[in-house]
Amino acid sequence: MDQPVKFVKESVAELSELMMPTHVNNLGSVFGGAILQLMDKAAYVSAARHAGVPCVTASFDRVDFVSPIRVGELVTLRATVNFAGKSSMEVGVVVTAEDFLNGKKREAFRGRCTMVALGPNGRPAPVPRVQPETDLEKSLYAEAENRYRQRH
Amino acid sequence: MDQPVKFVKESVAELSELMMPTHVNNLGSVFGGAILQLMDKAAYVSAARHAGVPCVTASFDRVDFVSPIRVGELVTLRATVNFAGKSSMEVGVVVTAEDFLNGKKREAFRGRCTMVALGPNGRPAPVPRVQPETDLEKSLYAEAENRYRQRH
Amino acid sequence: MDQPVKFVKESVAELSELMMPTHVNNLGSVFGGAILQLMDKAAYVSAARHAGVPCVTASFDRVDFVSPIRVGELVTLRATVNFAGKSSMEVGVVVTAEDFLNGKKREAFRGRCTMVALGPNGRPAPVPRVQPETDLEKSLYAEAENRYRQRH
Amino acid sequence: MDQPVKFVKESVAELSELMMPTHVNNLGSVFGGAILQLMDKAAYVSAARHAGVPCVTASFDRVDFVSPIRVGELVTLRATVNFAGKSSMEVGVVVTAEDFLNGKKREAFRGRCTMVALGPNGRPAPVPRVQPETDLEKSLYAEAENRYRQRH
Amino acid sequence: MDQPVKFVKESVAELSELMMPTHVNNLGSVFGGAILQLMDKAAYVSAARHAGVPCVTASFDRVDFVSPIRVGELVTLRATVNFAGKSSMEVGVVVTAEDFLNGKKREAFRGRCTMVALGPNGRPAPVPRVQPETDLEKSLYAEAENRYRQRH
Amino acid sequence: MDQPVKFVKESVAELSELMMPTHVNNLGSVFGGAILQLMDKAAYVSAARHAGVPCVTASFDRVDFVSPIRVGELVTLRATVNFAGKSSMEVGVVVTAEDFLNGKKREAFRGRCTMVALGPNGRPAPVPRVQPETDLEKSLYAEAENRYRQRH
Repeated sequence: MDQPVKFVKESVAELSELMMPTHVNNLGSVFGGAILQLMDKAAYVSAARHAGVPCVTASFDRVDFVSPIRVGELVTLRATVNFAGKSSMEVGVVVTAEDFLNGKKREAFRGRCTMVALGPNGRPAPVPRVQPETDLEKSLYAEAENRYRQRH
Repeated sequence: MDQPVKFVKESVAELSELMMPTHVNNLGSVFGGAILQLMDKAAYVSAARHAGVPCVTASFDRVDFVSPIRVGELVTLRATVNFAGKSSMEVGVVVTAEDFLNGKKREAFRGRCTMVALGPNGRPAPVPRVQPETDLEKSLYAEAENRYRQRH
Repeated sequence: MDQPVKFVKESVAELSELMMPTHVNNLGSVFGGAILQLMDKAAYVSAARHAGVPCVTASFDRVDFVSPIRVGELVTLRATVNFAGKSSMEVGVVVTAEDFLNGKKREAFRGRCTMVALGPNGRPAPVPRVQPETDLEKSLYAEAENRYRQRH
Repeated sequence: MDQPVKFVKESVAELSELMMPTHVNNLGSVFGGAILQLMDKAAYVSAARHAGVPCVTASFDRVDFVSPIRVGELVTLRATVNFAGKSSMEVGVVVTAEDFLNGKKREAFRGRCTMVALGPNGRPAPVPRVQPETDLEKSLYAEAENRYRQRH
Repeated sequence: MDQPVKFVKESVAELSELMMPTHVNNLGSVFGGAILQLMDKAAYVSAARHAGVPCVTASFDRVDFVSPIRVGELVTLRATVNFAGKSSMEVGVVVTAEDFLNGKKREAFRGRCTMVALGPNGRPAPVPRVQPETDLEKSLYAEAENRYRQRH
Repeated sequence: MDQPVKFVKESVAELSELMMPTHVNNLGSVFGGAILQLMDKAAYVSAARHAGVPCVTASFDRVDFVSPIRVGELVTLRATVNFAGKSSMEVGVVVTAEDFLNGKKREAFRGRCTMVALGPNGRPAPVPRVQPETDLEKSLYAEAENRYRQRH
């Protein structure tokens, strides 16, 4: 009996927020912790889209702070499930900052985390396999599968 | 000397947020005021995309509360500049709520507001004209222009 | 059998907040969305005073941004039910900003919205009629009734 | 050369907020710290009205928690300067909670604090004397003056 | 039948927070109300450690604002139960601000409040007696007991 | 010319917060993003203690979600600089949750991140070397140095 399959594009989750003065640290740029919090939310939505059930974060595997973000910029987080094990998923999140007065965008954060699907009893639940389509998706899948094999 | 022109699609602004327990009123659904705040932000981004300079809200012309939103839903706001006068813009905002566990979406709020572009001296600044393309854009343009003519 | 009647003064609701740095947008004045959120709360209290039961917002019919507000000012919102239909109420909200170091006040926002009373089953519930007393109340009543008749 | 005089009624400051789920502690009623924060704001506005210059809190002299507050209630804080020394003022704050669905009000907190007026150099600045008028004002003045004399 | 006894050191509760721009008032230093809120939390944890059951605040008996706090400083609150009556406890809270770039610390606030233990029925519940050990603890105990005797 | 040296114990930074209903996600336990935000703050304080100058986060290298946290628990984050390169530091953060009514503690999160010291010109600044003392410190140092060597 086969496990169901989903495409990467089916788990795309986008969050976008306007950065306000409440997001700022005492050095004047957007506080990294505020973005980590948004990354956790975006990953949660993406994982839940893939699994079709509520999920919890198991680990943040790596987050790189690429470029500082300023107040007044538009931040967009794009999360996708790049690989799925039995009940866990590796979710990649790319964070883009945009100065929308001139339309210039740049990558600000990049990270990946592992989410686990929960069944009605609060125990890990099986999730669909991931079917990568594009070259980028296949490459991210291979890297994630490699990390998964090393841990299991 | 011609005023510059921009297409409606150039001013599209999308904000997306996951509704958390902090967004809830004491009746258990998402507090309308929280969504109005997000609508103001989305309209601001759309107007600034069109005008290319900072903008301020002049009025919220009408907002309909179509369907209550629950905690855990993904709210997406899509704002576009539907018509532009000399320095003012009518911005339409459609708010969609999605239960992303099953992918079902529905319209939750719908509204329009008037934003004004500000020049470096803090005075109203001229903005590009709007060039509608699709039938929907043309219809929204005509309605907005009609409202604009009645007020001027 | 007559519908009960209430005076406008019975539904007066006042909210007052000191504007803090958390209320500010990235242009340095108070974020309009923060005031819209307060207007929704003031309208809710006024409608609930009139109806005697919980209410929900059906629409924001119009909000004018009259004058920008600065951090450190005292904002006072005064809401009244100006007209009532069968289960809906038009609530007017006037927002005043005060520099309390010199006592100078000015109108900052002005708006009106439609609230609907909810019965125990979550369905629209009948509300008392409004009895205007002063000339201003009578004028606001007439305007609101006119808008109500056009929609029904 | 006489020090100027102000009536108690000139320093009345009222703040009113609707209690939301974000104000709640983990026992289900409104978190006392949230009310203390509002009391500090109300006392600040009252002291600044009396002094006509910015003020800072020197001490919270006593706050009694009289009755727990529930989410959905309207909280109103009324602060007055009851006595003034050379540059310090005793500010009394009474906090009322109202279930506005039935109009029932009760005292929820009662407290007093000492505020100090600041001159342009950041040093304590002289403030007007307080002129009590009603019996209650005279009684609060006498008690506050007594406490002031004991400390100086 | 003896009432149980606990040492002061058993009720030590420490909270520490980094002061962010959201904690600031409109004069540029940390808003006193934000610290009062933290003091209430620290006192709650200390009282609950002593009593072993949930507690509520009965009164803030005195809080002195010793030194202003700046954004970017680390604030540490240390609360201890200094004396216990039948079901009430006097909790002392000392607030220290630290510029952690140079390690310099100073006292910023100092206060005491009265907390009451609650039994499963929501009524005041008996609490252990306090056994002071050090000279400071004995002195704080004596002062607190004196205040307790004057009120009962 | 020797680089200065600091002990691990000199960079210990502890933050402690009481978990409130505002920290909760829509599954009823504390939102992981809220803890990530606190971890970023604790790491910042620890790195700044070690470097003596402001720092920025370069990456979150790994965070494991060990055990869910409930509202009403006391969360304590303990951060230390475990290894330092030329201008970067690996900071370890252990998050403990405590039910302080019974004193039971457990590890809830564990992670490490890389912080970079900033000089007055906003460029990376040299930091003291780390001198581990205990066996645990030596082991964490060796692991961190190993990761550092692999990246450089």
